[in-house]
Amino acid sequence: MDCIIIGAGPAGMAAAIYMARQKLDFVVISKTVGGQTLLSSEVGNYLGFQLLSGNELVDQFKKHMQNYNIKIKEGEEVESIEKLDKGFKVKTKSKEFEALTVLVATGEKHRKLGIPGEDEYYGKGVTYCATCDAPLFGNKDIAVIGGGYSAMEAALFAAKYSKKIYIININTDLEGDEELKTRIKKEEKIEVIPNAMTKEVMGEKFVTGLRYEKDEKVTDLKVQGVFVEVGLIPVADFIDIVEKDKWNQIKVDKDNATSVEGIWAAGDVTDVTEKQIAVAVGEGTKASLKIIKYSDKLK
Amino acid sequence: MDCIIIGAGPAGMAAAIYMARQKLDFVVISKTVGGQTLLSSEVGNYLGFQLLSGNELVDQFKKHMQNYNIKIKEGEEVESIEKLDKGFKVKTKSKEFEALTVLVATGEKHRKLGIPGEDEYYGKGVTYCATCDAPLFGNKDIAVIGGGYSAMEAALFAAKYSKKIYIININTDLEGDEELKTRIKKEEKIEVIPNAMTKEVMGEKFVTGLRYEKDEKVTDLKVQGVFVEVGLIPVADFIDIVEKDKWNQIKVDKDNATSVEGIWAAGDVTDVTEKQIAVAVGEGTKASLKIIKYSDKLK
Repeated sequence: MDCIIIGAGPAGMAAAIYMARQKLDFVVISKTVGGQTLLSSEVGNYLGFQLLSGNELVDQFKKHMQNYNIKIKEGEEVESIEKLDKGFKVKTKSKEFEALTVLVATGEKHRKLGIPGEDEYYGKGVTYCATCDAPLFGNKDIAVIGGGYSAMEAALFAAKYSKKIYIININTDLEGDEELKTRIKKEEKIEVIPNAMTKEVMGEKFVTGLRYEKDEKVTDLKVQGVFVEVGLIPVADFIDIVEKDKWNQIKVDKDNATSVEGIWAAGDVTDVTEKQIAVAVGEGTKASLKIIKYSDKLK
Repeated sequence: MDCIIIGAGPAGMAAAIYMARQKLDFVVISKTVGGQTLLSSEVGNYLGFQLLSGNELVDQFKKHMQNYNIKIKEGEEVESIEKLDKGFKVKTKSKEFEALTVLVATGEKHRKLGIPGEDEYYGKGVTYCATCDAPLFGNKDIAVIGGGYSAMEAALFAAKYSKKIYIININTDLEGDEELKTRIKKEEKIEVIPNAMTKEVMGEKFVTGLRYEKDEKVTDLKVQGVFVEVGLIPVADFIDIVEKDKWNQIKVDKDNATSVEGIWAAGDVTDVTEKQIAVAVGEGTKASLKIIKYSDKLK
């Protein structure tokens, strides 16, 4: 094979389209199709598409792939990558693949808070996917933990369903999109609690409350839901042969080459700082064109 | 102002969307809206959009911008950029603009052949835009000069209208998209003449023929149209304060910063090697987010 694409978010899908058009022999291995885009309640900044949900956008991406008959090995998780004399061996739990090149486009996953109750009440009120789960909290009170773009997005989305939304922000100010900040201010259901450190998720069978500390004072909120939105970490533990930065992001150059010849990386898993759909699509495109030229030369 | 975006191709438009969402004070100056995308008869590789014409895709981009009320100063051509104590001054023929930052997204324009008859018969059979002009050559014979992606695209597009299409290629093989190559081979109206050097465009009131040299033999073809597709050159003559490479492309780092603080560049005008809509959109997005952070800090 010419290439193994690991990951089917925007970066992996964009690369697959280019490779299919160039008739490369490749495979896409991924846990899910759509990546973080699936978790976005609204996308308004991918050029050419008016405001739509992440799900709707992923549907457009899937349709595009179907046009080129691209099949994805879904549900497979890569466990290791090994360098061979020529090319690479990629192992999942049950299978092995070999190819001349590898494109790592595994993206990021949600960071945990690491506090008592978080794991215990996961799926019982604690969620890392506001978009997926907010409708389950109709007329309930919830707390969103975080202060960035995704925390604001989660709070606004939850406001469609829930009665009251607290944003528990460890920092003084919310950070990110001005448009979102304005909408947060206007939404009466949302109360922002700044400079607050989340301490514990409390519950019985399900979540019943959230403890936080602010100005050395501990407060217990009555909430039935806790939406954790404290950032993302790269999905890169399975690969140790390429250079990474201190955040475990894969280092790439301007053409998305990694430190190992034959391996490229694109999208949120890399050390490109801006984690955006449009950026992932661009980086996936660049990487795929480099891979196409590289594998052409080896033939 | 926070930013002056120069150019409204995919890179400039993507940046404008991000800046508008962030409520930045900015202006877009551009000769045209759409850039090279307008000249593409078919776009099949911008993730999320099925096969459509460049014009149709640009219409989607424009709609997106209208949603955010982005106005473009169309028809303006930038003549110079000057560094001020704080920010930059950008001059067009009739106006001056000042802003803290500049995003150069001027793209590329067509390279000329530099042979006798080329300028004389421009608009009288010689064209640099197959997509715009091919319909005018219905039932005529034409020559496409070039051997790359855009030459193949031009020939296939012309095949819809013209009787006979010669591709005059200076190299031995066509270069680029495999899908296009296959379609070229299948199209009986198209004849590829490899290893041929175009020498002269001949004509009376309009183009009547094309002279080329192959194996030290000169041949005159009877054609009524000459489509020049021999590559593109960056539109960067108006800016001399940033570092460029030997092809006059603006050098950028992974975040699209140029050598001058406060000036970013994105899209085909940069030294990023892959000239693609998706790449331009990604680079424009990266640059805009850096500009947003930079001008926030200066306030």
